[in-house]
Amino acid sequence: MDVRERIVVEAGILFGKYGIKSMTMDSLAEELGISKRTIYERFQDKDTLLFEVIRYYRNLTQQEALRLIDQSDNAIEALFRIIKMTIDQMMRMSPSFFHDFKKYHQKVFKQLSEPGEIRDFSMTRRLLEKGIEQEVFRDDINLEIVNHAIHSLFDLFGHHSKMIDAGFHRKDMFDHILIPYFRGISTRKGQKLLEECKPILE
Amino acid sequence: MDVRERIVVEAGILFGKYGIKSMTMDSLAEELGISKRTIYERFQDKDTLLFEVIRYYRNLTQQEALRLIDQSDNAIEALFRIIKMTIDQMMRMSPSFFHDFKKYHQKVFKQLSEPGEIRDFSMTRRLLEKGIEQEVFRDDINLEIVNHAIHSLFDLFGHHSKMIDAGFHRKDMFDHILIPYFRGISTRKGQKLLEECKPILE
Repeated sequence: MDVRERIVVEAGILFGKYGIKSMTMDSLAEELGISKRTIYERFQDKDTLLFEVIRYYRNLTQQEALRLIDQSDNAIEALFRIIKMTIDQMMRMSPSFFHDFKKYHQKVFKQLSEPGEIRDFSMTRRLLEKGIEQEVFRDDINLEIVNHAIHSLFDLFGHHSKMIDAGFHRKDMFDHILIPYFRGISTRKGQKLLEECKPILE
Repeated sequence: MDVRERIVVEAGILFGKYGIKSMTMDSLAEELGISKRTIYERFQDKDTLLFEVIRYYRNLTQQEALRLIDQSDNAIEALFRIIKMTIDQMMRMSPSFFHDFKKYHQKVFKQLSEPGEIRDFSMTRRLLEKGIEQEVFRDDINLEIVNHAIHSLFDLFGHHSKMIDAGFHRKDMFDHILIPYFRGISTRKGQKLLEECKPILE
């Protein structure tokens, strides 16, 4: 691991643990045992570093998701395992990370919202294709539209979601938003698997 | 109908036909055969008038939707008839109305996005309750969450929707987003009705 990667990896851990604001570039350098200049030579500012951190962990998650899709018994089980992984990741992070991100780093949020950035249509497309092959999803679904719909539904769970702000719990939203939509695009076989996979999330 | 109401009704028809920008307050007064002062005595500016126009027609649509819910054979048929009514209304309006609204009246758009304004949770709640009573929707759904989910899905069809901008067709989106979600919250009886009601929209 070169210095650049080490900075990204460690900054991610520290931001996740202490939030972004309280982890100044000074304290980051100190924690890493390097000079602040070493950081600034590689990352213009904190926003740039944060952007690279999120990208880096996004890629890891993505690779793991693809592994789950390929190794799970079926697309529904893979879906539940990917959601479980995402929830676990978020639970490990301090609420101050999300708070600081939303409050002080709108620029990075906007950058990540650009097409081809954080939003990974290819992973969900692969999941849907696998599911159709395995006859757990209906073969009459329009892949592109369903893929977009899924991402719009995922957005309801994010930290910029009005429903979260309004106090709804993600677990209830999962049961009453995501599960019904997936039930609606599933075959009988898929609908049975949806019920069977519920314990993965409990 | 008093003068105020007449202005609102007629302005709605004219905005819908010619767009908002080309229908100046002058031409509106001329069309109505009244003085511009008569309009300005009742509406501070065009934004205020536009806001009242949308509210007025929103109320009419809402009353009609409630009538459909009460008079249709079942909640699924009512849902299809309400969607049909909405589509028909939008088709009757000039694309320049939506274009102008989006481009020049962001303030009104924001006002209408406030809780209790254009978004009518009570109508969809009534639809869901009726459907549960009639055993077309599952009785284990969480009314509040499903209601919010439906409105989030409706938003995908609006004139501020990224999917519409990306070139997806509303009919395809309806078949692959709304129908599956409603299938997912429906009983077997409801799922059968969903298939049977499809011709209403064709």
